[in-house]
Amino acid sequence: MPDPGRPDRTAPDTVELIRAKRDGRALTDDEIRWLIAAYTSEQIADEQMSALLMAVFFQGLGPSELDAWTAAMVTSGERLDLGEVPAPTVDKHSTGGVGDKVSLILAPLVASCGAAVPQLSGRGLGHTGGTLDKLESIPGWRAELSAGQMIAVLRSTGCVICAAGPGLAPADRRLYALRDVTGTVESIPLIASSIMSKKIAEGTSALVLDVKVGSGAFMRDLQAARQLAQTMVGLGAAAGVRTAALLTSMDTPLGRAVGNAVEVEEAVATLRGHGPPDLAEVTLALAREMLALAGLDADPAAALAEGRALDRYHRMIAAQGGDPDAPLPRARHARVMTAAQAGWLQRLDARAVGVAAWRLGAGRARKEDPVSAAAGVLCLAKPGEHVEADQPVLELRTDDDSRFMRAVDALAGAIEIGPDPPAAGPLVLERITP
Amino acid sequence: MPDPGRPDRTAPDTVELIRAKRDGRALTDDEIRWLIAAYTSEQIADEQMSALLMAVFFQGLGPSELDAWTAAMVTSGERLDLGEVPAPTVDKHSTGGVGDKVSLILAPLVASCGAAVPQLSGRGLGHTGGTLDKLESIPGWRAELSAGQMIAVLRSTGCVICAAGPGLAPADRRLYALRDVTGTVESIPLIASSIMSKKIAEGTSALVLDVKVGSGAFMRDLQAARQLAQTMVGLGAAAGVRTAALLTSMDTPLGRAVGNAVEVEEAVATLRGHGPPDLAEVTLALAREMLALAGLDADPAAALAEGRALDRYHRMIAAQGGDPDAPLPRARHARVMTAAQAGWLQRLDARAVGVAAWRLGAGRARKEDPVSAAAGVLCLAKPGEHVEADQPVLELRTDDDSRFMRAVDALAGAIEIGPDPPAAGPLVLERITP
Repeated sequence: MPDPGRPDRTAPDTVELIRAKRDGRALTDDEIRWLIAAYTSEQIADEQMSALLMAVFFQGLGPSELDAWTAAMVTSGERLDLGEVPAPTVDKHSTGGVGDKVSLILAPLVASCGAAVPQLSGRGLGHTGGTLDKLESIPGWRAELSAGQMIAVLRSTGCVICAAGPGLAPADRRLYALRDVTGTVESIPLIASSIMSKKIAEGTSALVLDVKVGSGAFMRDLQAARQLAQTMVGLGAAAGVRTAALLTSMDTPLGRAVGNAVEVEEAVATLRGHGPPDLAEVTLALAREMLALAGLDADPAAALAEGRALDRYHRMIAAQGGDPDAPLPRARHARVMTAAQAGWLQRLDARAVGVAAWRLGAGRARKEDPVSAAAGVLCLAKPGEHVEADQPVLELRTDDDSRFMRAVDALAGAIEIGPDPPAAGPLVLERITP
Repeated sequence: MPDPGRPDRTAPDTVELIRAKRDGRALTDDEIRWLIAAYTSEQIADEQMSALLMAVFFQGLGPSELDAWTAAMVTSGERLDLGEVPAPTVDKHSTGGVGDKVSLILAPLVASCGAAVPQLSGRGLGHTGGTLDKLESIPGWRAELSAGQMIAVLRSTGCVICAAGPGLAPADRRLYALRDVTGTVESIPLIASSIMSKKIAEGTSALVLDVKVGSGAFMRDLQAARQLAQTMVGLGAAAGVRTAALLTSMDTPLGRAVGNAVEVEEAVATLRGHGPPDLAEVTLALAREMLALAGLDADPAAALAEGRALDRYHRMIAAQGGDPDAPLPRARHARVMTAAQAGWLQRLDARAVGVAAWRLGAGRARKEDPVSAAAGVLCLAKPGEHVEADQPVLELRTDDDSRFMRAVDALAGAIEIGPDPPAAGPLVLERITP
């Protein structure tokens, strides 16, 4: 109901701000600051904020609205001060892909080249896994560090991967949970401000974004991915964080392992120099971007080949209580899916494999759910490889064999075999700078 | 987060339905029935429903979605059975205007012509008053009747105006309260289904809609009002209620009185044959539509002139405990606003007068607030009349003289005086039938 006569108006009227955004009016910096602060302090009800978020989904946020929105999320909490870290700080964020264990290799690799990588990471929700879930399959490893502990690990090993504390961008924490249940996740300005507020609050001086594109990614088409990347790079620049982005392909899983422990194993194999080539290629491309932004002239391929990155990985895991040499959990049950015919593997759909791994127990449906360390999918063949009829293509692993059926359902149509080798597309599609 | 693998999916997934509507997919009848029932039983959270309502604001509801939505709201509660009422039942609903006391005259008038008028009405929220608020200024009059009492009054006097019980379209009650605080009121399908679900549940066989158009109305432009009227007429027809609509002008207050007791006085004056001509004209036009839909060949102008409607009004008020002869509350304070110059009154803005009356105490800002029976505005001159400089144009009345200032603020620019008589437009703008 229009409310022009509301006698007790003191603060901005939430309903009027919702209607303004709904009707396409740009909100002012003050209005946005008030909205985010009032929501964080629970002055604005969830049902009002979700209506506003849906209005933002339709009407978008202009550049100045988006800067204000992101800045308000940063100032809703603390901003870490990494000033006492002697090396140049640079972080990486991925928008999420299937089999994306890049962080586990990249953080120690870049650290071994002289940068400091302060990676605050998250848990997985949905068909793409979370870096913390993967690392938690290592016996003893702890994701939760205080800010002081985080900085201490960063200083001693040059890299740290840990959970963001509750004091970091708390507005984003509440907004993300709300978006998740109200169908308002898929909005480029809301995605961009959510990611960037956390990374800005984390205190890194530089940031490389890995924006995944394809069936297994959040952004399925190049144009939307490019727009998201440009938006985030712009927000980084506005906040004084040197930011660049790579758009990378996510039509098929990255590497061969999808899950938690199986991805840690593959990351370690890559650090030892015998990982799958696509994983190494994407990791090195991101490492080069990070080192360039950090102003370091180092060769990450050499650091990888010479075992310096592996050494740094061991130190990073141990610094957070993990035993890098301990055996990882193994699943009780395994089943293979085989090729229906002989030929060249044309397509192995990333989303289907991600959903299958999720259903096997590697992911969670709700924030509160636990994940299985051992569950996952191994891609025994990848697109571009030749298979014989009945040759195993996928190995499904789980501790709960009642889960196989729905996992196999998810894979219907995911494996495509043809008579000729498929055309191989590039892994790194585009590079976006401010 | 897209959730294709949710392992525990049993009911429809609320988030998927929100996303479907958001992305422009039509919801099925089953999905809509489930949504409304689940919201009524609090299985769906307010923040999810408000996001869905905002998606409906942007994407609309198709005809079949709207029929299902309205039917689901009707079946969320009881539907009154007026089968034992011997006369043909016909009701009127107004979308709300300033000075709109038509129901107080119309219900007894149409009853005196042989129809039965079962009017379940509401209280005002915002700058347009509510019929129940007006009638409650009559000492002793009670708005709350049980269904049995309502039907008894209807049988004995041919008309009843009372509050809708909580069992009638409870889904609409919850949805309306939610829309009010989430900026999702102004949606034609949501307005139409809200109004029509209550009228269908009320059990009337026929219905005339008075869709107000102009500055003081919910719909300010003719095209939107026409669309709303067509939508509601269609919903009535789909539910087996004979329905027609008149679009009537609401650029200036209807009659001269705006408030509660002052509107009752003006309604009684009209029933006595000396009310303002615009009020009588709109009332008679609606009465003719109602009688035609009820299949009655009667002359409402004669019923008004011969005092039969007044007699019926007395009986209707008395049947609900009211004393129709008791003096009405008078405000303790009054102040006039005068003409700044001599000339013809061109415009007396309905919305400004409505907001002023609201601020004087005649309306409420929140559902829980009381209203003042005595507060209001009298229009001492109306557009088309000649005024001298300093001649009183408006009389403001209130029990709380601290309210004058903000009421006067609301009237800035509301009175326009010019050198020539203004062109008089029609009061009844259009007639909409199925």
